[in-house]
Amino acid sequence: MKALEDKILNEGTVLPGDILKVGSFLNHQLDVAFLLEMGQEIARLYQGEQINKILTIETSGIAIAVAAAAFMKIPVVFAKKNRSSNIDCETYTVKIHSYTHNNDYDAVVSKAFLNAQDRVLIIDDFLANGQALGGLLNIVEQAGATTVGVAVAIEKGFQHGGDKLREQGIRVESLAIIDSMDSNTIKYREQA
Amino acid sequence: MKALEDKILNEGTVLPGDILKVGSFLNHQLDVAFLLEMGQEIARLYQGEQINKILTIETSGIAIAVAAAAFMKIPVVFAKKNRSSNIDCETYTVKIHSYTHNNDYDAVVSKAFLNAQDRVLIIDDFLANGQALGGLLNIVEQAGATTVGVAVAIEKGFQHGGDKLREQGIRVESLAIIDSMDSNTIKYREQA
Repeated sequence: MKALEDKILNEGTVLPGDILKVGSFLNHQLDVAFLLEMGQEIARLYQGEQINKILTIETSGIAIAVAAAAFMKIPVVFAKKNRSSNIDCETYTVKIHSYTHNNDYDAVVSKAFLNAQDRVLIIDDFLANGQALGGLLNIVEQAGATTVGVAVAIEKGFQHGGDKLREQGIRVESLAIIDSMDSNTIKYREQA
Repeated sequence: MKALEDKILNEGTVLPGDILKVGSFLNHQLDVAFLLEMGQEIARLYQGEQINKILTIETSGIAIAVAAAAFMKIPVVFAKKNRSSNIDCETYTVKIHSYTHNNDYDAVVSKAFLNAQDRVLIIDDFLANGQALGGLLNIVEQAGATTVGVAVAIEKGFQHGGDKLREQGIRVESLAIIDSMDSNTIKYREQA
């Protein structure tokens, strides 16, 4: 998505440690008009796939998931990190490792909101090593539901999480794939 | 908002400890079509107020804030809980007490995304004792910005956080105000 590639170049900042800051529009301030454009593009990519539910994970997956759901006219379920005292029913739980924070956390989804009849699109803001998305795929599997595919705004291609998912036969759509980046240059992967 | 009052009656569950579970549409599964209806109503209530930014707090404020922003055509900024390693610039910080989790946390907003020219609408999913909203009001004050008002989906009127804010002269719009609730009955406050 050319508009996203341009926006990253204009507003993003690359910091040491392979950190890309896009807080001006994606994960601190939210450019909602632009989020809706991205959501519309995700809806277009997956049209005709009879998806009935979007699964994401708090926090920064929620906004883009809601934007896509606005066009797909389906609900979103977001996995919660750790077990909240407000969830008392049975849950699907998976342990996820965060490289950003160098710790493990549980991602939790209530069984009430995901079941074997669901055809699920998994959405997140970033795809790097694929730990979070792997956890969400695991939760869909626990529910006996079908993962139709994955959609993310920004894939860090050089961390190869997306490629590993594609090798497993999972459809992964990334609106922008960064193949390399440093403080001077961001190189995008060509996409059809 | 009658549709929200009815939805709480149909889908909500009251648990001991004044907990109202609305995970089927507001804070675990997200009924995005309904969120957009609520967002449109918030936009209607505050039309003509020249608001240029919505401030909310992660996690469950984000979805309704995005829904309102879609109609108001303005950006959202969400305060982060604790200090993330991805925020390196100067920040506004306020300590907030959580009665739900019985702990304190820092709410953090980058100074890059809130300034003295901003006319801000503060949005959250719930208003109970008003701790979280009080923290967000404090952050707007730190920025020298103007709080035009507050909008929430569900106010627990019996916990009086909303009334305290109104007594301070702050405009508070709640789409549903619960004056009392138990496992059998939910009573709403009449609103003009």
